[in-house]
Amino acid sequence: MRGAGLKPVKVGICGLGTVGGGTFNVLKRNAEEIARRAGRKIIVEEIGARRINPDCDTKGTQMTSDVLEVARNPEIDVVVELIGGYDVAKELVLTAIEHGKHVVTANKALIAVHGNEIFEAAQKKNVMVAFEASVAGGIPIIKAIREGLSANKINWLAGIINGTGNFIMTEMRDKGRDFDDVLKEAQELGYAEADPTFDVEGIDAAHKLTILASLAFGMPLQFEKAFTEGISKITRDDVQYAEELGYRIKHLGITRRAENGVELRVHPTLIPETALIANVNGVMNAVLVDGDAVGQTMYYGPGAGAEPTASAVVADIVDVVRTLTADRDNRVPHLAFQPSELSDAAILPVEQTESAYYLRMNAEEKPGVLAKITSILGEQGINIEAIIQKETSEDQVPVIILTQSVLEQKLNDAIAQIEALAEIGGSVTRIRVEHFDS
Amino acid sequence: MRGAGLKPVKVGICGLGTVGGGTFNVLKRNAEEIARRAGRKIIVEEIGARRINPDCDTKGTQMTSDVLEVARNPEIDVVVELIGGYDVAKELVLTAIEHGKHVVTANKALIAVHGNEIFEAAQKKNVMVAFEASVAGGIPIIKAIREGLSANKINWLAGIINGTGNFIMTEMRDKGRDFDDVLKEAQELGYAEADPTFDVEGIDAAHKLTILASLAFGMPLQFEKAFTEGISKITRDDVQYAEELGYRIKHLGITRRAENGVELRVHPTLIPETALIANVNGVMNAVLVDGDAVGQTMYYGPGAGAEPTASAVVADIVDVVRTLTADRDNRVPHLAFQPSELSDAAILPVEQTESAYYLRMNAEEKPGVLAKITSILGEQGINIEAIIQKETSEDQVPVIILTQSVLEQKLNDAIAQIEALAEIGGSVTRIRVEHFDS
Repeated sequence: MRGAGLKPVKVGICGLGTVGGGTFNVLKRNAEEIARRAGRKIIVEEIGARRINPDCDTKGTQMTSDVLEVARNPEIDVVVELIGGYDVAKELVLTAIEHGKHVVTANKALIAVHGNEIFEAAQKKNVMVAFEASVAGGIPIIKAIREGLSANKINWLAGIINGTGNFIMTEMRDKGRDFDDVLKEAQELGYAEADPTFDVEGIDAAHKLTILASLAFGMPLQFEKAFTEGISKITRDDVQYAEELGYRIKHLGITRRAENGVELRVHPTLIPETALIANVNGVMNAVLVDGDAVGQTMYYGPGAGAEPTASAVVADIVDVVRTLTADRDNRVPHLAFQPSELSDAAILPVEQTESAYYLRMNAEEKPGVLAKITSILGEQGINIEAIIQKETSEDQVPVIILTQSVLEQKLNDAIAQIEALAEIGGSVTRIRVEHFDS
Repeated sequence: MRGAGLKPVKVGICGLGTVGGGTFNVLKRNAEEIARRAGRKIIVEEIGARRINPDCDTKGTQMTSDVLEVARNPEIDVVVELIGGYDVAKELVLTAIEHGKHVVTANKALIAVHGNEIFEAAQKKNVMVAFEASVAGGIPIIKAIREGLSANKINWLAGIINGTGNFIMTEMRDKGRDFDDVLKEAQELGYAEADPTFDVEGIDAAHKLTILASLAFGMPLQFEKAFTEGISKITRDDVQYAEELGYRIKHLGITRRAENGVELRVHPTLIPETALIANVNGVMNAVLVDGDAVGQTMYYGPGAGAEPTASAVVADIVDVVRTLTADRDNRVPHLAFQPSELSDAAILPVEQTESAYYLRMNAEEKPGVLAKITSILGEQGINIEAIIQKETSEDQVPVIILTQSVLEQKLNDAIAQIEALAEIGGSVTRIRVEHFDS
């Protein structure tokens, strides 16, 4: 083969859990096909892992329990970090860079929180850090934004980027089940962790969204400024009312270029049921991107799992191999824009973002209550799109209101006033609404 | 800016029609954002076009009516071929390559038919030929397959890759309209050409499918072996019966790695209405790809139009700029696999492909007819999934049969026998069915 004259590339895999095992197996099973693409053989030179993985036949591969040994191994060209977490992973990646090795990682938390520092170190040592697997598993969304859409001024993007959350929202809708009930099943199926906070409270999605936002808008990673709201408070009733109004509720990460800054927010969102992304179900992920030239494109696929994630890890390895001896000017910059060209766009506090809203409240069923509510909204300049008042046998009836787009601060003020009404029981539930018209 | 020290890249645009005009405008409007990504300024040095485009302010840009002059201009680094067609486009591209220039083209017909020759010439002169815009307009599907999925043995892919056809199929379903009626509207709207053959008979889709198949399976372009069947014979009734059975009809390009070769076929196809790709409507395109590691991923967006296509053209220019001074070993090969590593997989004649089928026939309404039909199918080993017999006031009633997957040759034999029955009037309509289960 062409490239047969080129030396094989030697890879060190650190972490041999779900994704590490998948990566090892894919590299082995598809070795020939991958070499035909990459122009060189790719060899797993060493594995750094505390435990063996029963799904992997690692016979003949050098093993160590010390991942830092892999980062320092002079034989190795590319270090693949798949141990997860922050501290050791960061030390591993920085050690590998320090030793002049290219790095591939699937660690969204590491990149979202420490990416700026890591990319700076990589830039200095003239090595690549590739992280396609860190967002939306097997979907090549980072490549799409960084390279495929490079002609565009990107206006916004919105993604279903946590499979656990989407599984829960899908089950709640399809089967009319309660959040807690579905969460328990997700835990039993292995979709959700014993401590589900990371998934259901939107932290995992915020890590991924932070990365996508930086790629889209060319700005440093700013995870600490992301707004996150989870799905644990969504009730079966909300799902049902949304359905009646022609919407589905999805847990979305949304980032948008606004006039005075960038919106960066993860929250449950009503989407029109006719939108393609509203029909992305189960554990699947999808990211919808709006660019000024291309308009809307969407990328769909499995967001997790051993081999889907390995698919992205190995694609990164092939990318690295394909530009292994290129100089810096011939490489794609880590965050899509040249390092010196990152903008200092401010991330907007959520009160300064605009959105339409679904509001649900319990109101006494007597004349004049609806008028009071709508007049409070009117005073804040909030236009109403639709109102549903449900019949019940209770003293209080649920009132559902869909508003048009409004500054969140104005909605907050209106909600405070509505909650202060004697005729309103308890607090007002609010869920943001997006139409993705443009 | 970093890269400010690097010389600007000079581009020559040939053809200033819809896509050429869009490319000129996007390069101009987003010049700053694009330079921040590419690390260099990109300058349109010269335009080769017979006519000016009223949507473009080309003041200050050198113009020529001779596109070959652009291909020979020593100042130019990248020639962008947007004139379309075969002869002049081929001469232009080969002349540009001969003069050591990189080429970007949106010309699917040129690549599908003359790509092998063009890539060989480019390889010899060590220049790149990029053609993202040739398939599915603004969707970065070529990059996804070539780079994003490089870890995978790709099993199959299926795409809605002709917007005109999808617009027609969508209107027929949504509004119960006839093919001819919608086609006329599509022509009035400018979605379809005066001579719609290229679009509705599947030739345009076959050009694109040929390119995708080569990228997926690593084989030379073999457009002449593609099977094409158009949508002009699909009736309103077929759309309606499909709907009753839970399916939608889409005009798909499908390529699949089979045991003894590669399937390469464009034809109307019934898809379960719950499949995401069945919900891709209007002029939008989508490509569903099945890889052994990642599973199924889908790529969705506008398949045509000035700026969506320009988005892909400009992304290609940025790709070329990003690896402008790289040597051959540090570039992505044209057809995803290294040139010496292309396989000689045979394209299967359509009779040797397998598919499930929707059959519609007119049968006399008398006892025993259905038994005769099903026994013919049974003799060919064709299992039946569903049968609908419609009531009408006519002597003959429509019978609709869904079969399980079968070798096309066996179905052909069965249909010949069914058509020979005295109780069957006219010919049997057949439409392939795909479930995309794996």
